[in-house]
Amino acid sequence: MATHRLITKVKNSKLLEKEEERRDVGFGTRITNDRGRLMKSDGSFNARRVNGSFWARLDIFHRLTGLSWPMFFLVVFMVYFVVNCFFSVLYMMIGVENLQGIKAVSTMEQFWGAFFFSAQTLTTVGYGHVAPVGLVASGLSSIESLVGVLGFAIASGLVYGRFSRPVPKILFSRNAIFAPYLDINGWMFRMINESPTELVDVRVEISLSRLETLPNGQRSRRYYPLKLERNQVNFFPLSWTIVHPITEASPLYGATEDSMAESDTEFLVYIRATEETFLQSVHARYSFRYEEVVWGAKFVPMFDSGKRDDIVSVDVQKIHDYEPKELN
Amino acid sequence: MATHRLITKVKNSKLLEKEEERRDVGFGTRITNDRGRLMKSDGSFNARRVNGSFWARLDIFHRLTGLSWPMFFLVVFMVYFVVNCFFSVLYMMIGVENLQGIKAVSTMEQFWGAFFFSAQTLTTVGYGHVAPVGLVASGLSSIESLVGVLGFAIASGLVYGRFSRPVPKILFSRNAIFAPYLDINGWMFRMINESPTELVDVRVEISLSRLETLPNGQRSRRYYPLKLERNQVNFFPLSWTIVHPITEASPLYGATEDSMAESDTEFLVYIRATEETFLQSVHARYSFRYEEVVWGAKFVPMFDSGKRDDIVSVDVQKIHDYEPKELN
Amino acid sequence: MATHRLITKVKNSKLLEKEEERRDVGFGTRITNDRGRLMKSDGSFNARRVNGSFWARLDIFHRLTGLSWPMFFLVVFMVYFVVNCFFSVLYMMIGVENLQGIKAVSTMEQFWGAFFFSAQTLTTVGYGHVAPVGLVASGLSSIESLVGVLGFAIASGLVYGRFSRPVPKILFSRNAIFAPYLDINGWMFRMINESPTELVDVRVEISLSRLETLPNGQRSRRYYPLKLERNQVNFFPLSWTIVHPITEASPLYGATEDSMAESDTEFLVYIRATEETFLQSVHARYSFRYEEVVWGAKFVPMFDSGKRDDIVSVDVQKIHDYEPKELN
Amino acid sequence: MATHRLITKVKNSKLLEKEEERRDVGFGTRITNDRGRLMKSDGSFNARRVNGSFWARLDIFHRLTGLSWPMFFLVVFMVYFVVNCFFSVLYMMIGVENLQGIKAVSTMEQFWGAFFFSAQTLTTVGYGHVAPVGLVASGLSSIESLVGVLGFAIASGLVYGRFSRPVPKILFSRNAIFAPYLDINGWMFRMINESPTELVDVRVEISLSRLETLPNGQRSRRYYPLKLERNQVNFFPLSWTIVHPITEASPLYGATEDSMAESDTEFLVYIRATEETFLQSVHARYSFRYEEVVWGAKFVPMFDSGKRDDIVSVDVQKIHDYEPKELN
Repeated sequence: MATHRLITKVKNSKLLEKEEERRDVGFGTRITNDRGRLMKSDGSFNARRVNGSFWARLDIFHRLTGLSWPMFFLVVFMVYFVVNCFFSVLYMMIGVENLQGIKAVSTMEQFWGAFFFSAQTLTTVGYGHVAPVGLVASGLSSIESLVGVLGFAIASGLVYGRFSRPVPKILFSRNAIFAPYLDINGWMFRMINESPTELVDVRVEISLSRLETLPNGQRSRRYYPLKLERNQVNFFPLSWTIVHPITEASPLYGATEDSMAESDTEFLVYIRATEETFLQSVHARYSFRYEEVVWGAKFVPMFDSGKRDDIVSVDVQKIHDYEPKELN
Repeated sequence: MATHRLITKVKNSKLLEKEEERRDVGFGTRITNDRGRLMKSDGSFNARRVNGSFWARLDIFHRLTGLSWPMFFLVVFMVYFVVNCFFSVLYMMIGVENLQGIKAVSTMEQFWGAFFFSAQTLTTVGYGHVAPVGLVASGLSSIESLVGVLGFAIASGLVYGRFSRPVPKILFSRNAIFAPYLDINGWMFRMINESPTELVDVRVEISLSRLETLPNGQRSRRYYPLKLERNQVNFFPLSWTIVHPITEASPLYGATEDSMAESDTEFLVYIRATEETFLQSVHARYSFRYEEVVWGAKFVPMFDSGKRDDIVSVDVQKIHDYEPKELN
Repeated sequence: MATHRLITKVKNSKLLEKEEERRDVGFGTRITNDRGRLMKSDGSFNARRVNGSFWARLDIFHRLTGLSWPMFFLVVFMVYFVVNCFFSVLYMMIGVENLQGIKAVSTMEQFWGAFFFSAQTLTTVGYGHVAPVGLVASGLSSIESLVGVLGFAIASGLVYGRFSRPVPKILFSRNAIFAPYLDINGWMFRMINESPTELVDVRVEISLSRLETLPNGQRSRRYYPLKLERNQVNFFPLSWTIVHPITEASPLYGATEDSMAESDTEFLVYIRATEETFLQSVHARYSFRYEEVVWGAKFVPMFDSGKRDDIVSVDVQKIHDYEPKELN
Repeated sequence: MATHRLITKVKNSKLLEKEEERRDVGFGTRITNDRGRLMKSDGSFNARRVNGSFWARLDIFHRLTGLSWPMFFLVVFMVYFVVNCFFSVLYMMIGVENLQGIKAVSTMEQFWGAFFFSAQTLTTVGYGHVAPVGLVASGLSSIESLVGVLGFAIASGLVYGRFSRPVPKILFSRNAIFAPYLDINGWMFRMINESPTELVDVRVEISLSRLETLPNGQRSRRYYPLKLERNQVNFFPLSWTIVHPITEASPLYGATEDSMAESDTEFLVYIRATEETFLQSVHARYSFRYEEVVWGAKFVPMFDSGKRDDIVSVDVQKIHDYEPKELN
C-alpha cells in the first residue's frame, strides 16, 4: 500500500470560499443544477429515495400517521376484519363445538359464529352468550384478548398521535408580488394562521435559488438568504405581510422578468413557530416560482369593513387578493 | 407583457431604516394605529379571524382541549348519548328480536332496551344478559364495539392531553407601579408562580407600545423593548419583581401621566419558562395599560411574618398590595 | 391627581450597575441576605408559597405525578374503592332487586352485591351473572361504565406520564474538594449518570453565592458564575469531574476556610442535558455548602481494576471517594 | 484543623490554557489515552458503568423501550402468563367452587379453569360463563380487574412510547474517503435519510480524536473540531456528502496513513436534526476509525439513471460505492 500524504500546492483554496458562498440549503448540486421546481406547493420536496431497506421504508407508525382520516379508519377496519377472520379460522380448526352457545350447522354459520365470538373477544366486549370451553379454545381466546388489548393500545396511540400532531394551518397568498414599498420596491407575500390556535414566536427564512453562469460557462445553482424588513414576530394574531426590500444589496436588484425566468428563480419559504395549546414547535414550507410572482401590484387589505365592535377582525379568504400598482 | 426591471433612484432607503426601527411585535400597523387594548387581561389578542376554511376552523382537538372541564364532560356525555341513540335506532331497524334477552313490547321499551345494549357494547362492558343473534345484529354490534374502542381512545387522548397540558399558573400584580428604585425611579410589576410545580429558566420580555406623531402629522404605533434590571432568572421559587429602571435611555424618560394616556401606552409582557415536572416549555402573556400603572408607590413585602422555622415562605395573596411612596 | 413626570437628577445610576452585577439567580434579596441553605440536597428550594388559590394548589396531575409509586397505587386503589362505594349506595337506593342475579337478604349482602356489580361495570369486565334490569338501573350502569372508561383513561395517562417522565439519575460526589490542579488549585466535584440511558449535550452552570459586606456596613448576598475548565460535553458515558480552576480571576482566589464559613458560601450547581431514549431535556440541581467542601484532597479513580476486556468500566459506588492531597 | 488559603505562585496557568485546548468531548482522559475505539459502529460508547444502585439500573421503562419488538412481545406475554398463574393460585386457595361455572375435578382442571377466568378478568373480557360468587372471590376479581386495567395502561404506554420514539434512520457510507476536492483535497463521507419521514435543520459536528506526544514524552489524547464546507442544511431530501476541506489550517494537513494509524485517529460524527412528522429532535452518532478511511477515492453518484420523469430519485443502496481517484 502506497503511503499518501495530505499536502497540496494550494494552501488556501479560492474555490473553497466560492463553494462556501453557494449556501446550498440542502438540495445538493446534482438536483439543483437542472431546471424545475425544487419544492412542491405543499412544501414537500421534488425528490425521491428508492431502494431503501425494507424496515426503513415500512415505518408503519409514520405512514399511518400521514394518512387521511377516512383512509386511516379504513385501514383500522380492514385490520380488524382480517384479524377476526384469522382467529375465526383458528377456532374452526379447533372445532366450533368448543365455543358453547353457537348453534351452527353449515360451515358458513360456523365461520360467522366464530367470527363474532372473535370480535367480542378482541374488543373485550365478551357478552358471554358464546364462551370458550376446553383448554385449547380457552387458551386461544385468552391469547386473542391479549392481542386485542395490545392492538387497541396501538390503535389508540395512533389516533392520539394523529390528533395531537402539530400541523400548522398557515395559508399563504397564492402569489408573491413586486410592490412599491416606502420609497423603493419590495418583494412580498402574505400569510395568515387559519387555525383557532395562536402561533407565537414566528420566524421566517427565505432563500432565493437561481441558476447562474460561472466564468467557465457552466451553469450552477446558487442560494441567497433574503434580508427581510422583519424576520420574526412574537405574536401572529392576524395576517403578516413578509417584505424583502429591494435595496442595492439585494440579489434581486436589477432583476427583470426575463432574467428571473432565464435563471429559473425560486423563492423557498421556511417558517418556524410555536403553537400555543401544547407549546409544540411547528414548521411550514412554501415555495414561489418566478411565474407565481406578480410585477407591480399591491395587496388588498383584509380587514372586515364592519369593524367598530372594538375587536379587529380579518377576512381569511381575502389573503390572495391584490390589485395592480405601478412600481417605484 | 411589459418587462419590468427592479431598479430605483433610492438605493438605500432611509424610510426602510425607520420602518425597521418600529419593531412591530406582530400586530401590524392597521390594528395598532387605532386606540384600544392590544392584548386582553388573559393574554389573548384583541383580534379575530373570520371566514377561514371549515376544516381549519373545526380543529376539534384544540377546541376540546380549550374547554373548561365541566363543558368537556358535558360534550363527552352528549356524544355518548347521541351515539347510543344512533345505534339504538339501527338495532330497532334490524329488529329488537335480534337482541336476545330484551323483553320489550312497546316501542319505547324496545328503544331503551337497544339503547342500553348499545351502551354496554360501546363501553365494552358487555354483560351479556342481552346479546346479539343473527348475522346483521352481530355484525352491527361488532362494528359498534370497534367504534367504542376507537372513540374512547380519542376521549382518553383528550383527557390526557388536557391533563398534561403545560399551563403556567403565574399570578401578576393587578397594577404595575412607578416606584423609587435605587437613586432613580423604575417601572415595576411583580409576579409569582402559583402552582406547586417549580418553574426554571424564566425569561421576561417587555414591549412598550405607544402611538407617536410622525413629522407629517400622521399617527403611528411604535414598539420599544424595555431594558430590564434582570430579564432572566434560573430559579423562580418566590415572587419576582421585574424592574425597568428609568434612565435617560428609557423611552419612558420624561413621560407624564398625560403623555402616557394621550399616546395610548400599553406594556406587553411576555414570559417563557420551563416547568419542572415534565420539563415542558410554558408561556404566559400579560398586558398593563397606562390606566393600570400607579404613580408613586412601592410593593408591600410578601413574606410571612412568622418566618423563623428557617424556611422562607411568601403569602401569595399579597402580590397585589402596594402603598404610596414619593418618586425620586 | 397630581401629574407626575419621570425625570431624575441622576441620569445614569451607578447603583443600577452595581445591582445588575449582583447576578441574582432568582432567589431575591430578602431570602438570600439571611444565612441558611438556599437549596436542599435534593435540588428543591428552601422556600414555600402559601395562601395560593385553591385550584392552583390542587393541581392534581402534577401532585399525582410527584408521588412515590406505592403512594400512587394506594391513591388509585382508594379512589376505586370510594367510587364503587358511591355507586353501590346509588344502586341500593334504586333497589338491589333491579340488579338481577344478586341473591341478597341482609343490607350488607346487598351492599357487597351492588359493590361488586359496580366494580365489574367500572372496569368494564361485565361478567353478566349480575345485570341491570329496568330503566333506572340500566341508565345508572351505562353512566357508570362511561365514568369507568374515562376514569381509567385518566389513570392510564397518569401511569404513562409518571413512567415516561424525564428524571435524570445523576449521582453527585458527596463532597466537593479543593484539589491541586495542574500547577494551580481547583474547586472540583464529580458526577456520574447512574441510569442505563445515555445523556448527551450535558451543560453545567455553577453559581457561587455568598454574603458580602457593603461599604455602608450592610450585608448583601452576591452571586458569581464560576468559570469552568469545561462547561459542556457532548457525551457523558463515564464520570465527569467538573473543575473550577482557581486563577487570580476567580472569586475564590484568596479565600480561606474561615472566610467561606463567615460569608455563608454555597455552590449552586445546575445541569441540563438531553436523555437519549426519547431525546427529552432533563435538568438536575445540586448544592454544596462550605462545610461540604474538603480542603486538600483528590478524587480516587473510579475505573475497575480488571479492565482488559477492552471496554472501559467504572464503579459507580466509588464516586464519593477521595484521599488527602497537599494543595499547591 | 489547619486553615487553608487559596493562593498560588502561578496566577494564570499556562497549563490551564493547554488543558482547555484539549477540547475533550466528554470521554475523559483515562479512557481516551489508551488505544481503542471510543465509539462503536451503532453509536454507543465503548464504556460501561457498573455497581450502580438497584433502582437506577432497573429503569424498566427505558429497558422495555430499548428491546426489539419480538423480545418486547415475549416479555409482555410472559408477564401476562405469570400474573394469570399468580391469580389462578390465589383463586385455588380461596376455592375454585367460588368461581361458579367451572366444572373441574382434578387440580389441573381447577388450575386451568381459574387461569382462564383470571385471563378474562385481567383483560376485562369477562364472558361471564364463569363468574365469582362470595365476598372473597368477588373481591379478588375486582382487584384483579383493576390490576388488569392499570397493567394494560402501562403496556399501552410502552407500546405507544416505542412506536412514536424518535429514531432517525440515517445510513452512513461504510467508509470515509480522502478525495480530491476542488483544487485541494477533502476528507468526506456521505449519508442519507432512509426513512420516509423528512429530516430538516440537520446539523453535523465532527471531532477528530488522536493521541499526541507531549513535550515530556507522555501520550495524551486531543480532540479537534473539524471545519466543514457546510455544517448545516435546512433540508435533507437526498444524500449529503459532508466535506472537511484539508487546508493548511486543518489538523489533518500533512497527515499520512502511517501517522494516522500511529496516533489512533478516530473521527466522531454527531448529527442533530428535526424529524418532520412530530417535529421531534433526533440525534445520530457514528464513528470512522483510521482503518475505515480510504485514501484517494471518489464517491459514485447515487442518482437513478432513468431520471426523466422530472422527479429526482436516488438509489439508497449506492451510498457505500466509491471508485479510486488520484488525490490532488
